[in-house]
This record gives sequence, structure tokens and C-alpha cells, in this order.
Amino acid sequence: MQPGEPNAVAEAITADLSNEFLSSARVFAWSVSEVIERTVLREVAGDSLTFSQLKLLYLVAHTDVLNIGDAAAFLGVTCGAASKAVDKLVRRRLLRRVAPAEDRRTFRLSLTETSRKLMEAYQAARDYRAKLALEQFPPDELRRTSELLDRLAGAIVSSSANPNAICMQCEIYFRERCRFGECGRRNCFYQYHKTRDLRPGNDHKPAEGKVI
Amino acid sequence: MQPGEPNAVAEAITADLSNEFLSSARVFAWSVSEVIERTVLREVAGDSLTFSQLKLLYLVAHTDVLNIGDAAAFLGVTCGAASKAVDKLVRRRLLRRVAPAEDRRTFRLSLTETSRKLMEAYQAARDYRAKLALEQFPPDELRRTSELLDRLAGAIVSSSANPNAICMQCEIYFRERCRFGECGRRNCFYQYHKTRDLRPGNDHKPAEGKVI
Repeated sequence: MQPGEPNAVAEAITADLSNEFLSSARVFAWSVSEVIERTVLREVAGDSLTFSQLKLLYLVAHTDVLNIGDAAAFLGVTCGAASKAVDKLVRRRLLRRVAPAEDRRTFRLSLTETSRKLMEAYQAARDYRAKLALEQFPPDELRRTSELLDRLAGAIVSSSANPNAICMQCEIYFRERCRFGECGRRNCFYQYHKTRDLRPGNDHKPAEGKVI
Repeated sequence: MQPGEPNAVAEAITADLSNEFLSSARVFAWSVSEVIERTVLREVAGDSLTFSQLKLLYLVAHTDVLNIGDAAAFLGVTCGAASKAVDKLVRRRLLRRVAPAEDRRTFRLSLTETSRKLMEAYQAARDYRAKLALEQFPPDELRRTSELLDRLAGAIVSSSANPNAICMQCEIYFRERCRFGECGRRNCFYQYHKTRDLRPGNDHKPAEGKVI
């Protein structure tokens, strides 16, 4: 039987294989979260920056205008908490208000010199740590795996009730061309905020909420 | 240059490739969490069971004696919240206290007929949903990907400050033989609770905390 024959493939996806695959994906996601993200951040910034704050800096660095609701969805917190988080980073001079906000629900923010350097240091340290693990596999195998995960993720969400949702699920791993968005019929939040028409009255489609 | 040559491989792991790989892994983890876990649970149990409660039922189904601290680490909540969560499920007759706990910090619990059937229904629905996505790829490719993710995760955590930590990071995807544990020098919480010596005075090594 060839892999191309649907029945042959379908029969072989046992509950055990499914469990093993999901288990591997779960421990990988945890390892990245624990080491590649949080441990590296502690090494770079000590206790001066939480991972949630780093995410907010990343969001500001990659978007134009932020709506409080989007920032809240991105961080997985309430709008009030997102608003406080922004204020705190402004007070600490890690974020700068570029222009007074006419609407209190939106921000025009940018990184400061300090936070820009911090982000660069974090990303360099993260890339180095990731490379140490990734280099045990040939790049082509990593690319193939990346594509497989995107296609699987796309297949999983494409049947959901919310097609064409605004997506920010790559979190701090934005890429210009996102296979997941293509396969899963998602609209990239980052792309949307680079290109959308900001004229008054133009609908701002809310971002899909994070699962918290 | 061959993949086996370290320098050849190392040179090719660019920051872009690293970012793409981590991005794919992130969106896959989110898709599983959002659809394979939470949407499926809503389909099976409506609003009657949260995902956190389902995790607790799974933990009870797969372990002997629970320490409140372990349950809290597994759920990513405080000990007080874990204790309340257990009490609530006992009151709703989804958990049964098998024997009075001599030490209030430990539980001897089992599933009831209702919760056992609920778990079975959830796992069947989950396996079906996962299969729909997974069957677009040949089983051998999925197994290879699973192994690659385990080895990467193992490489990422093996350099951390806490080798041989008690690990519960597979969450609700326990497997008898865990490559991640082998590569990453972790000790499986589930295995540990099946085999450990429960005589008084035997140290109970705390489980590694979840990142929340």
C-alpha cells in the first residue's frame, strides 16, 4: 500500500500514534516556552522584564497602531491589565507614546533606544540557544517538519467555526509568509496592521482571543 | 556537504529558519490547544467541564496518590486552588475519595462511572478529530516528526539547571516510553507514581513547576 492511498493511510493513524505525536508536540512547546523563551529572557534581562512585557514590546515593534483589545488578546489578559501594562512600560521608558491618543482605546507607541537594544539582545540570545538544538538536524529536515506542522495546524483550525479570523497565534515568531495562515484560512494580525486603512469609520476587526 | 558534517549543518541554521520553525511549532501547539482540546471538550461535555477539570480527571486516572503540590503544578495553579478543584469534582461525583487521606496534602482518588465514561468519550472524540488532520501525512512521516520534536525538546532542556527533574509536561498525553524523558534526562511523573515506594519517610520529590 502506498502513502498516497487515503484508506491505507487512514487505517494506520491509530490512537497511539495520535497520542504520541501530540505528546511530542506538547513537550516541544513546553521546552521552547521554558528554556528558549523564559530562561533566555532571564539571562538577558534578569528580573527586570517579564515574558509578557517582552511580548508587548515585540507587538509594538511589529505593528503600527494598537487597540487595547488586541493587546489584551495577544497577552491573554483583560483590557484593563493590558492598559496598565502599557502604562508601566511607558513609565519605565521602555515604550514611548509617539502621538497623543485621540481614542483612549488605541495606542501609537514605539520602542525606545533601551528597549530596542533589549529586544535585539534577547533575539540574538534566543537564536543562539535555538541553533544549538536545531543544528543536530539537517536544515531540510527542519524545513520539512515546519511545513508539516503548519499544514497540520491549518487542517485542524480550518474546520472551526471562525474561518478568516484575525490571527496572532505565532506570538513572537512573526514571518512575512505564513503557511499556517494560508492552510488554515487565517488573516495575519501583523500583516493587517501594516497595511490596513486607518481612516475613521473603517472597521477594526477584532483579533481572535487567546485561550488562557 | 553532507548533513553529517557539523559545520555544514551549523552554518545553515539561520535566524530565519529558527524563527520559522519556532513559529510553526507555536501555531501547531495553539491549534491543538484550541481545537483538539477545548473545542472537542465543549462538543463532548458542553459547559459542564473545564479543560483544567478534565486534566485533573486525567491525572487521577493515571496515577495512584496525588500530592496537592503536584496537582497544583500540573494545573498551573496554587495549592489552594488545586485543593478546591478536587473538592468541587468530589461534590459533583466526578471524583471519588477511595480512602480517607491521613495527610490532608495527599489524595487517594479514583474516577466515578460518570467521569470514566466522560473521559472515554472525550478521548474518542479527540482521537477522531486528530486523525482527520493527521491522516493527510504518511504514518512514517508523523513518527519521524514526533521523534525529531522529542530530540529537539530533549536537547533544549538537557542543558538547563534542573536535570533529572520530575516531568509532567506531556500533560494529558502520557506514553509508556517517552523519548523526551530519555533525551532530556527527565523523570516521568506518571511512571514515578506507578512505581514509587510509598512507605512513610520516603522522600516525595516535588514535580517541576509549570510555566504559567
